[in-house]
Amino acid sequence: MNIELINTGSELMLGRVLNTHQQWLCRQLADLGYVVTRQVAVADTADDIERAVREALGRADFIITTGGLGPTSDDITRDRIAALLGRKLHEDPAIVAHVESFFAQRNRPMPASTRVQAMVPDGALVLANAHGTAPGLALHVSPNPFRPEGKPSWLVMLPGPPRELRPMFTNQVTPLLKERLPLDADFVCRTLRTVGIGESYLEERIAGPLKPLTDAGLELGYCAHTGAVDVRFVARGCGADADVAEAARIVHELAGEHIFGEGDDELEQVLVRRLTERKQTLALAESCTGGFIANRITSVPGASAVFLAGLVTYSNAAKEHFLGVRAATLAAHGAVSEPVAREMAEGARAKTGADFALAVTGIAGPGGGTPEKPVGTVFIALASAAGTKVINPVNRYDRETFKYLTSLQALELLRRAMKRAGEKVGE
Amino acid sequence: MNIELINTGSELMLGRVLNTHQQWLCRQLADLGYVVTRQVAVADTADDIERAVREALGRADFIITTGGLGPTSDDITRDRIAALLGRKLHEDPAIVAHVESFFAQRNRPMPASTRVQAMVPDGALVLANAHGTAPGLALHVSPNPFRPEGKPSWLVMLPGPPRELRPMFTNQVTPLLKERLPLDADFVCRTLRTVGIGESYLEERIAGPLKPLTDAGLELGYCAHTGAVDVRFVARGCGADADVAEAARIVHELAGEHIFGEGDDELEQVLVRRLTERKQTLALAESCTGGFIANRITSVPGASAVFLAGLVTYSNAAKEHFLGVRAATLAAHGAVSEPVAREMAEGARAKTGADFALAVTGIAGPGGGTPEKPVGTVFIALASAAGTKVINPVNRYDRETFKYLTSLQALELLRRAMKRAGEKVGE
Repeated sequence: MNIELINTGSELMLGRVLNTHQQWLCRQLADLGYVVTRQVAVADTADDIERAVREALGRADFIITTGGLGPTSDDITRDRIAALLGRKLHEDPAIVAHVESFFAQRNRPMPASTRVQAMVPDGALVLANAHGTAPGLALHVSPNPFRPEGKPSWLVMLPGPPRELRPMFTNQVTPLLKERLPLDADFVCRTLRTVGIGESYLEERIAGPLKPLTDAGLELGYCAHTGAVDVRFVARGCGADADVAEAARIVHELAGEHIFGEGDDELEQVLVRRLTERKQTLALAESCTGGFIANRITSVPGASAVFLAGLVTYSNAAKEHFLGVRAATLAAHGAVSEPVAREMAEGARAKTGADFALAVTGIAGPGGGTPEKPVGTVFIALASAAGTKVINPVNRYDRETFKYLTSLQALELLRRAMKRAGEKVGE
Repeated sequence: MNIELINTGSELMLGRVLNTHQQWLCRQLADLGYVVTRQVAVADTADDIERAVREALGRADFIITTGGLGPTSDDITRDRIAALLGRKLHEDPAIVAHVESFFAQRNRPMPASTRVQAMVPDGALVLANAHGTAPGLALHVSPNPFRPEGKPSWLVMLPGPPRELRPMFTNQVTPLLKERLPLDADFVCRTLRTVGIGESYLEERIAGPLKPLTDAGLELGYCAHTGAVDVRFVARGCGADADVAEAARIVHELAGEHIFGEGDDELEQVLVRRLTERKQTLALAESCTGGFIANRITSVPGASAVFLAGLVTYSNAAKEHFLGVRAATLAAHGAVSEPVAREMAEGARAKTGADFALAVTGIAGPGGGTPEKPVGTVFIALASAAGTKVINPVNRYDRETFKYLTSLQALELLRRAMKRAGEKVGE
């Protein structure tokens, strides 16, 4: 089955807005077992829209367009598609009533131009818009004049604003899709998230042992993010569940220490969850990451139950004053050093009373490097009841990537320590 | 001129990652005066990539592909495009050396599979990758077998990771495009960035006075971000420079107090620049923003010259211990209150000796709200030699938007204070 997505809007082609529809719709469809084979974005000009729709009708069973259903002069998707398919437009009194009540409820006069949103191509299903004025429209194109032997397609038009599109897709398009184009077999999808192992090394470890399963039809995909790699399994048909479970078991056996979660899990979520379960607390002392780790931790709702304080000690004076790092240590070893990282972590733990304290000190760059301590040098310390451990990676990247990767290594240091402390974390 | 973008990657079609390349590349090209007519995303399967590239070659003068140049088995863009165009691949010793030194510098062994990244189609220009291993490739397809009369096209392949793609585009693709496909008329584009004024209000102020210029052909665009609005002017042909300068002068006159920068300026960059010029220092005390403001400030290279410390005091104990907030104040008014914000800012300033100290305390949500202090309540204080000022917005959004908008309000409070102190900031 072919599903295609057409995103219309000149603001997309000028790069003024980010196309979040693509990811959101593709993700929803993938999790339902449907695969989007192509996504196209074009400006909202008549020719561009018509050409994109005609091409998609020549290939796809199910087509979703986004945008161009509103009341302004550049909202032309409805008209152009009706014209392309030779369908007349008629005014739908139920939509007129909905638009009128939408404005009345908000005590705003109804601009005359909004009435155009009630125009419906003959034969279209109307998808009610609970969060705005423009309804969605679904057309069964049968026979489809653009496809060999007139093979039918569904063409679904959705409004552009995400808060209107998303519930409309979930509540109205998903049931339509499942009813009219049901999957012909079971579908199982599962993603394992790993950290601390490169894509190539991970593939070296697991691809061979997984080969009997992939040869038998299991789909195996890798997605590398900065410092992290996702492994995704997809199986179809009977036995799909068992195949995916077996594949996950193999990866856990061969690379389990790197797996921190599944699906949409983020490392900071896993850690906040586990700290909460264990009623343990965390403090942070950050120099080169400048608050990035604190920001990640505090992005998790409920973090306040486990996170006591983060000290962003950029200056030496701040390291001494807030963390109790000794001036002699700074003088002897420099701020970017193993002993200073150790004293930062131990100081943060002592001053806050936290169970765990993570500290990072390093050279983010672009300036500040020396031959002995080049840009990218970083010391990460974890202080806990079990003592203090310091690691010393070299993260030679731009400033943003440096911060991200360093934060990942710090959080992973904590995850592994919690795991060694006797509990499964993130698996 | 037709420019098309092809984004490859099954992770895009599965919705695992957001396609930020589209916006970024479209934005860069639009600001240079080039318009992207179509963007397509396909999975990284041989047929899909080949079909998308063949179709684009049939229409476009300049084609950019992203992704599929890495070392794993699903990185097939290079191979498929070479095959489509009948070009042989050869190993480039300079790329092999680059990949080897990339791994050596990071003290990591080089996996054998990474060597495939040194394979170059005959006749291709190599675009060096300063931030990763896979180089970009540029092919002049002339004659172009897929276009009427063999009209030539450029086909540029860029690696998927943004930190590799972006500098490669800016430093290598932009000069190539300008040299090989120059615009046929002058093109001037300028963007003013504003904060603290809504899109409609800004339009009300400036659209009328700008009308003579827009009537004469100046393009005027607004782009609303969270808490900020960009105003973009585009002019073409002779006189373009003067028209854009006049438009900018008018907007400065009518809304100058809201303009913090131009182009890609961020508020934190403007502030670090001005603090550096004035040899002044900053400290932060954050509760609800959890390090987000410190992270923004320390994202600016050179921030260490002006940023002394950030105290992320999530718990009441941390507010008392690190900032000297009085237990009595916390007990009488609660942690989210005007007096606590004031004591946080004054405490951070006193303990660090900074010229300015910003403090924020609020309720990010989703939990923690009360009838008197609903989710979104926030107090932002700025302490300086001129005294302490506190503002009290209500930012009722999801957690991420709450942090972002609150950070913007805090930084804007500092910008305005520095401006009142006698200097133009951000204009």
